[in-house]
Amino acid sequence: RDYLAGVPDIAALLGGDPASWEITEVGDGNLNLVFIMKGAGGGVAVKQALPYVRLVGESWPLPLSRAHYEYLALSRQAQLAPGLVPALLHHNEALALTVMELLEPHIIMRKGLVAGTQYPGFVSDITTFMARTLFFTSDLALSAAEKKEGIAAFAGNHALCKITEDLIFTDPYRIAEQNRWTAPYLDALAASLRDDIELHVAISRLKLKFMASPEALLHGDLHTGSIMVTDHQTRVIDPEFAFYGPMGFDVGAVIANLLMAYFASAGHERAAGERAAFEAWVLETVEKVWSEFVRKFLDLWRAEGTGDAYPVSLFAGAQGVARLEAERQVYMQRLFADTVGFAAAKTIRRIFGLAHNIDFELIEDPKKRAVSEARAVRLARAMMVETGTFRTIADVTGAARKLRDWQPELAG
Amino acid sequence: RDYLAGVPDIAALLGGDPASWEITEVGDGNLNLVFIMKGAGGGVAVKQALPYVRLVGESWPLPLSRAHYEYLALSRQAQLAPGLVPALLHHNEALALTVMELLEPHIIMRKGLVAGTQYPGFVSDITTFMARTLFFTSDLALSAAEKKEGIAAFAGNHALCKITEDLIFTDPYRIAEQNRWTAPYLDALAASLRDDIELHVAISRLKLKFMASPEALLHGDLHTGSIMVTDHQTRVIDPEFAFYGPMGFDVGAVIANLLMAYFASAGHERAAGERAAFEAWVLETVEKVWSEFVRKFLDLWRAEGTGDAYPVSLFAGAQGVARLEAERQVYMQRLFADTVGFAAAKTIRRIFGLAHNIDFELIEDPKKRAVSEARAVRLARAMMVETGTFRTIADVTGAARKLRDWQPELAG
Repeated sequence: RDYLAGVPDIAALLGGDPASWEITEVGDGNLNLVFIMKGAGGGVAVKQALPYVRLVGESWPLPLSRAHYEYLALSRQAQLAPGLVPALLHHNEALALTVMELLEPHIIMRKGLVAGTQYPGFVSDITTFMARTLFFTSDLALSAAEKKEGIAAFAGNHALCKITEDLIFTDPYRIAEQNRWTAPYLDALAASLRDDIELHVAISRLKLKFMASPEALLHGDLHTGSIMVTDHQTRVIDPEFAFYGPMGFDVGAVIANLLMAYFASAGHERAAGERAAFEAWVLETVEKVWSEFVRKFLDLWRAEGTGDAYPVSLFAGAQGVARLEAERQVYMQRLFADTVGFAAAKTIRRIFGLAHNIDFELIEDPKKRAVSEARAVRLARAMMVETGTFRTIADVTGAARKLRDWQPELAG
Repeated sequence: RDYLAGVPDIAALLGGDPASWEITEVGDGNLNLVFIMKGAGGGVAVKQALPYVRLVGESWPLPLSRAHYEYLALSRQAQLAPGLVPALLHHNEALALTVMELLEPHIIMRKGLVAGTQYPGFVSDITTFMARTLFFTSDLALSAAEKKEGIAAFAGNHALCKITEDLIFTDPYRIAEQNRWTAPYLDALAASLRDDIELHVAISRLKLKFMASPEALLHGDLHTGSIMVTDHQTRVIDPEFAFYGPMGFDVGAVIANLLMAYFASAGHERAAGERAAFEAWVLETVEKVWSEFVRKFLDLWRAEGTGDAYPVSLFAGAQGVARLEAERQVYMQRLFADTVGFAAAKTIRRIFGLAHNIDFELIEDPKKRAVSEARAVRLARAMMVETGTFRTIADVTGAARKLRDWQPELAG
């Protein structure tokens, strides 16, 4: 309070006597402190990093520098996708503290999905966000020098990358203290993942791609808990995992979390079929997230592809233009395969790793929860090991639909 | 002279009165000044960067920072491949000046190859150099954090990368002022490359891989002009193009330059067949460079694969060990395809781009030179566009052998 009272812009925005400001701790993320401050004139959100993981405590240290990278990423995203991230009001590097626009009456999208809410503006907003932030930080838009500068600027955020490398790409596939799952129902499935050597090859390839394919500046944690929504607005928050990585990791995160919302939905229905319209909307949204992302990304490439990759001077004339267009389709097909694989990885970690999500966790009956989870895992396993059999996004949603009422055999 | 007289170690090594030191300018590279200094006690090589390209002049500026990156790379290579790079004696960052061991009686390998000299120790030395420098700077040996630090440390060397991006991956395939070739004989071939749209797709894919696949710390310019040899010693010099890039670029550079030595050989013979033994040795060397590189790289991976990629904890037990071994073969097969593609790119640039090499240039009869060059280009075109048809290194050398006496139709 005292600190922000001394920041003129913030004090003016909140208004009135600082002593009258109302402060609430609202952080429900795993890593940081988040406060809402309200004064007579308005409100702000204040996010401050701690030198350890909030969820776990001081035994798990985590560098404060993540606040720097989050600020850097948020600034870049605000330039590239204006209106789709919260406005930045103030940043103090030494305090690892950032003050942002208060998002009201937005809620975390994941909560809305659990409640069965449809978001008609979501596809348009999230695909604009992804297409623009990924395209404009890629070799298709940047010079190689600008790209290398960007990579170097985020290279220091490796502690956050390491969390992903461990919790998503390694631990769920081996015995690890922090793993948990819906026991005893999924005990056998958990054991089978630890013995599934083809799955281990697939996750290791994805891990290497995550570590060594700096295609674009990623959000790095783009699940539905990092997205705040109203019926008609979308804001992407919390890019502290930002780094230069493979684009499919961000796109796959969105798709994985929609698919999990779909499979969790059966666990939330009180009467059979009552959420059918919502579920149909979710799968339609999965399809449109991919197709609209592709459309927007390709439009940007065609109009603003002035980066050092695929120089237009090598694709002159009608034949060259046509051949480059065909190559763009090949590029997107490769990106689709990455997206399918990363979506699978993001799903499995939410069911067998450390960090779970409320889509499944709020299903009170553990057996029902396990059934929903087992369906999601069955699809994810196929997506990761037989990635090539998913040629289009309709192959993914079609497979999900077939598993909607599949009854796994569960112990317990 | 005055400067080095003030560096005690160097003054002691050279010995005697600094006024008596003999200084010769020997730089025959394109970018820098290189002096040999000899005193009563011994000699040193002194390399100093200029703020422009030596070959072209002040109209082509180039940052002095390349001396920093060269020093950094040389230090790392000296740790990883001791005895295979010149010993570092002194470095002055501000002067962009490095003093190194004087390599005597070593000569530039390319000169020896033009003369038809065989180097029995070359395969062993160069494959040790490549296997160790590439493996130990890769995700297979490093933590992701160490790897990102390495990438960031070399990210600033983008001006040198840009030279490669332009001169190797772009200009030879379009009209560019700096291009040159053996006219008029290769005029039609040069024009056909500019119209060869499949080749343009292939070179663009390689360019993107060069820019955005930081697999390991590359030498970055590993042709036979960057290698000094005696009959039994090999020293790799001049790593000023060093950066984190795709391993196949270094391996492909060695193979491309051996293949060019092979095709140039016919142009240097005074009597038919007089260089047959040399030519057989060159192709055998191409095969062994690949097979020994693979053997050493895989041995390192098996013994010291403690990096964050492919964690052994996911490949436990006999089945896991066997599956990881199979995956290693897949990894090397992918690296082979990269190597074939990059070797092709390195060949074409030497025949149609700015920087040519003496293998071809010293063939005095331009028509004979053009014949040798056309054979090399025919192989390179196939290697770049039909990369997948080259499954083993014997496919490459077999194709080269078939082209040894192929008679292209040349204008003029």
